Amino acid sequence: MTLDFTKLNGLVTAVIQDYSTGRVLMVGFMNEEAFRKTVESGYATFFSRSRNKLWLKGESSGHKLVVKNISTDCDFDALLIQVEALGPGVCHEGYQSCFFRRLDSGEWKESEPRVYDPEAVYGSKS
Amino acid sequence: MTLDFTKLNGLVTAVIQDYSTGRVLMVGFMNEEAFRKTVESGYATFFSRSRNKLWLKGESSGHKLVVKNISTDCDFDALLIQVEALGPGVCHEGYQSCFFRRLDSGEWKESEPRVYDPEAVYGSKS
Repeated sequence: MTLDFTKLNGLVTAVIQDYSTGRVLMVGFMNEEAFRKTVESGYATFFSRSRNKLWLKGESSGHKLVVKNISTDCDFDALLIQVEALGPGVCHEGYQSCFFRRLDSGEWKESEPRVYDPEAVYGSKS
Repeated sequence: MTLDFTKLNGLVTAVIQDYSTGRVLMVGFMNEEAFRKTVESGYATFFSRSRNKLWLKGESSGHKLVVKNISTDCDFDALLIQVEALGPGVCHEGYQSCFFRRLDSGEWKESEPRVYDPEAVYGSKS
């Protein structure tokens, strides 16, 4: 448990990857407490930089991320977390993955359709 | 080209994924210039926080990362870059992926063998 939280002001980067498909679903950040809660609970828990507090992914949507494997990198400042994603999509905008825009001739273009209605899940479109 | 470089002091997170296998190989950071060079050259170029300068991945090892696709996430502060990795491994410690340690009963354990000798490639073991 020797993660290096010093490089990003108390945080490490956490890459979330679908355990079965290999798709990268999102990138978040964890402080030491979020990491501990992730390990103890088995559900990915982040530190929200915008809300400045712990954030259990799926706490409002129900789209929790069940942890299957956790790896760290050579300098212990990033995590790769393989998960089973509960629900149709990880992204709060209604997509399976947050990475739903691809660079195409210098422009970011939507590269996949929405899989759920974020208004129905979160109450308001964001 | 509306990436948000404000959240990490001029940087965005860049997740590097093997284009053909889906394996996550490393996480780096890009400033605006590194991103531009990545797009223009077709080779992943990072901003090294430790050396405080641009870093063409593979400039010393030859293990360059050929860009296949670039995606960004819902809030435009992270990149997912799918690459063809030239050479046997991406990690400067001699592994295919920087994520070669897995959490196992509370301890980080090496989860794969080295694929090349870093001393032979970089001149010194790091």
